[in-house]
Amino acid sequence: MPAFDDLLAFDHTTQALGQVAGRLGWDQETVMPRGAADQRAEEMAAMESVLHARRTDPKVGDWLAGIDPATLNEVEAAKLREIKRSYDRANRVPADLAAQIARVTSTAQGKWAEARKADDYAAFSPVLAEVVSLKREEGAALAGGGDIYDAMLDDYEPGTTGADLEAMFGALRPALTNLRAAILDKPAPQGLTGSFDEAAQLRLSATLAQRFGYDLGHGRIDKAVHPFSSGSGRDVRITTRTNPDDPFNCFYSTIHEVGHACYEQNIDDAYLLSPLGRGVSMGVHESQSRIYENQLGRSRAFTGWLYGQMRDAFGDFGIDSEDAFYAAVNRVSNGYIRTEADEVQYNLHVLLRFDLERALMSGDLGVPDLEAAWNDRFEADFGYAVDRPSNGVLQDVHWSVGLFGYFPTYSLGNVYAGCLYEALRGAVPDLDAQLAKGDTTSATGWLRDNLQKHGSLYQPREIIERASGSAPGPEPLLAYLKDKFSGIYKL
Amino acid sequence: MPAFDDLLAFDHTTQALGQVAGRLGWDQETVMPRGAADQRAEEMAAMESVLHARRTDPKVGDWLAGIDPATLNEVEAAKLREIKRSYDRANRVPADLAAQIARVTSTAQGKWAEARKADDYAAFSPVLAEVVSLKREEGAALAGGGDIYDAMLDDYEPGTTGADLEAMFGALRPALTNLRAAILDKPAPQGLTGSFDEAAQLRLSATLAQRFGYDLGHGRIDKAVHPFSSGSGRDVRITTRTNPDDPFNCFYSTIHEVGHACYEQNIDDAYLLSPLGRGVSMGVHESQSRIYENQLGRSRAFTGWLYGQMRDAFGDFGIDSEDAFYAAVNRVSNGYIRTEADEVQYNLHVLLRFDLERALMSGDLGVPDLEAAWNDRFEADFGYAVDRPSNGVLQDVHWSVGLFGYFPTYSLGNVYAGCLYEALRGAVPDLDAQLAKGDTTSATGWLRDNLQKHGSLYQPREIIERASGSAPGPEPLLAYLKDKFSGIYKL
Repeated sequence: MPAFDDLLAFDHTTQALGQVAGRLGWDQETVMPRGAADQRAEEMAAMESVLHARRTDPKVGDWLAGIDPATLNEVEAAKLREIKRSYDRANRVPADLAAQIARVTSTAQGKWAEARKADDYAAFSPVLAEVVSLKREEGAALAGGGDIYDAMLDDYEPGTTGADLEAMFGALRPALTNLRAAILDKPAPQGLTGSFDEAAQLRLSATLAQRFGYDLGHGRIDKAVHPFSSGSGRDVRITTRTNPDDPFNCFYSTIHEVGHACYEQNIDDAYLLSPLGRGVSMGVHESQSRIYENQLGRSRAFTGWLYGQMRDAFGDFGIDSEDAFYAAVNRVSNGYIRTEADEVQYNLHVLLRFDLERALMSGDLGVPDLEAAWNDRFEADFGYAVDRPSNGVLQDVHWSVGLFGYFPTYSLGNVYAGCLYEALRGAVPDLDAQLAKGDTTSATGWLRDNLQKHGSLYQPREIIERASGSAPGPEPLLAYLKDKFSGIYKL
Repeated sequence: MPAFDDLLAFDHTTQALGQVAGRLGWDQETVMPRGAADQRAEEMAAMESVLHARRTDPKVGDWLAGIDPATLNEVEAAKLREIKRSYDRANRVPADLAAQIARVTSTAQGKWAEARKADDYAAFSPVLAEVVSLKREEGAALAGGGDIYDAMLDDYEPGTTGADLEAMFGALRPALTNLRAAILDKPAPQGLTGSFDEAAQLRLSATLAQRFGYDLGHGRIDKAVHPFSSGSGRDVRITTRTNPDDPFNCFYSTIHEVGHACYEQNIDDAYLLSPLGRGVSMGVHESQSRIYENQLGRSRAFTGWLYGQMRDAFGDFGIDSEDAFYAAVNRVSNGYIRTEADEVQYNLHVLLRFDLERALMSGDLGVPDLEAAWNDRFEADFGYAVDRPSNGVLQDVHWSVGLFGYFPTYSLGNVYAGCLYEALRGAVPDLDAQLAKGDTTSATGWLRDNLQKHGSLYQPREIIERASGSAPGPEPLLAYLKDKFSGIYKL
């Protein structure tokens, strides 16, 4: 079918340009000269304008109209679905509104950074109100009469609605607050002592990356302020960071990003630079980073192996057994900050944001009341008060840059990771014996073959169901957490 | 004038995209994972297709037709000239021919590398014949009835013809062969002994870059197989290389690339991402790299300072005086390879290529006869025979990738550097006293203010004439070389 072939050829170039734009982002965070920021903004804007013109090109609409879906096989139909989704979305948002959002969020991000530094929510509230108003307008344009928040969520997690998440998270919240309270009633495990050479951290971090299957022939590891994974296909790069007092930050950031990167590296060669050649959603992506980091990387078995590696690299650091090391890796303690939270409390931070941002989008919560609503909810779930806005409502950049519908994909990823882990344990009965030798081959191979290789062929819930054998729900994650932390804390 | 404003806005985005494509090239040579080459080729092709579409966009033609040049000031007229030149050129070459050249040169580059390894010109000759035939076709399309070689030259050196170069180079050749013969009759100066720590080379190389005014806030230095400079404006990166036996390779490659990079960094802020925001031609660019490297960097005064730096960095390396060090830096010896040649012999290598490639383009020389023609000419100028094709006709990549008209800009750059250096000495009477302290501020400041800051505002010959005070010719370069090498070799 000529229309379909032409559409795919056009999209191939668009995908390649998208990779180039992504590489510019990597460059900016790792190697760009500090004085190049202004010029880089112009270069990024130029790439964005080219990409936007291609995504909304009327030729794409003509090709789409000329294709008979009944003639397509499964792979072709999935390609068509992804292209159509991108085209429809890009065309639903008026260009003026998109430009206004770009301008206002650029200002808002700067104001957010200043307000966070000054611990002053009132200084940020007016510009956030502008962002919220514009995003609601965008959401309405996308929703075409439907639910605004669902339309935004669809950008990050196609096929999942706010109501789906509400049901899932509603089951998580009481179970997690109860588990948290039970754990914090017990004595805290021992922490690490001493200082950890940063070059040695980076060496062990590279070993970990390779142990988890990251292919350095198609990637690289650099240092950056915030760890991230970037790119698809044959060039998937990750970053990490070091803190001399806290080697776990480096090691588990690395394993987390390796989870993201392996998903991209392991997609079927046949989908390279096609609409299927990327991870299918934020939630499924996060399921890979989380299962690598937590269910595998923080397991009793794997931490036993890691303990030996760390003793070799750093000598004595005040922990004298594998069990004590396992407890230190999985230590639960009070804290305000989402990105520093442990497996038990992390989702409580996310659930809070999900409820608040959904209320902002529906109009049930006004921006001026957001700080108080945050603080009330935090105290209800965590049992103590937020001490200052930078430890509360101002801690995350997301809302300032207009990301609404993004936060819940973090917890959805954890839920998906729980489902996948349950199935993985069934498929690899001697998993612990392998992990205890630092060998993740069977585990990561199972994830590659059952999930990663498919890229965007299947929709998010569909791929989780295919891989795990049943419809995704929060029970496996909860069972895993209860079992794991009951063991560590002797609950 | 709306047409002019629209044209400039459109061109601004094109310039920004050009910078992005250039950065991809930098990435490929420095940090790209080795397995990413195939995907990168797709990404580069996507960028090229976008850039080509913009350069040939009929809107540009409409805008150009709607502008009355009489209403423009000097800067505006120069911008119009540059845009028009690019538009006319891009539109003169049929898209099919451009695509065919891209395909054939891609194959030819691979065949050249194999043939060079196998020392077998006959294995390369057939594909080179294809390249030559296609480039002649392209040249004819560009020339529109005029001289094919002049049309190609115009790509790299607007306003200079083959006849101009023939006259200039005709004066150089006998003078250089005579100077070379006189030098090689004398005893060779002492060379360096010992091994030079590569990390220490890179440290001193960074010091040299900063001594010559390279701004690391808007650039960076990495290692690469071939040194190069990349980018314009606020992000101009260079690469260098190290050889434990030959620190001069690292130091003078660095200074050379710093000359290119400073030209780009020092262009007037007002021209950023405009058609004037780049060096105006290959020849003028090479004049900057060469005057930094040779007239300044290899001067008796500056090498005196460098000798002290090298003693501090490396201890004893078998040279016991500044004079002996100066002679070692400027040592002239027999050799086959252009890129390894000294100041005296370098241009003889280039002149040979200029005459041969001009004959290939005119049809006076057939590709099967190229090897014999090369070898005859080499023996005539250098006095000994080429021992194998990899030391002769197969040594450079240029022709395999279709670069005809490029080689002579190397020597033109040396000629221009000679003119500029004569004027610079007049303008900075105590130049040697400054260079002897490792201080290039006055010299590089003079080049910045008289040449570099103008970017592409003036045409190549015009900017050299403005800066040096007279029409460019080979005499200053010859006088400089005779004076310098008569001193070193006591001719």
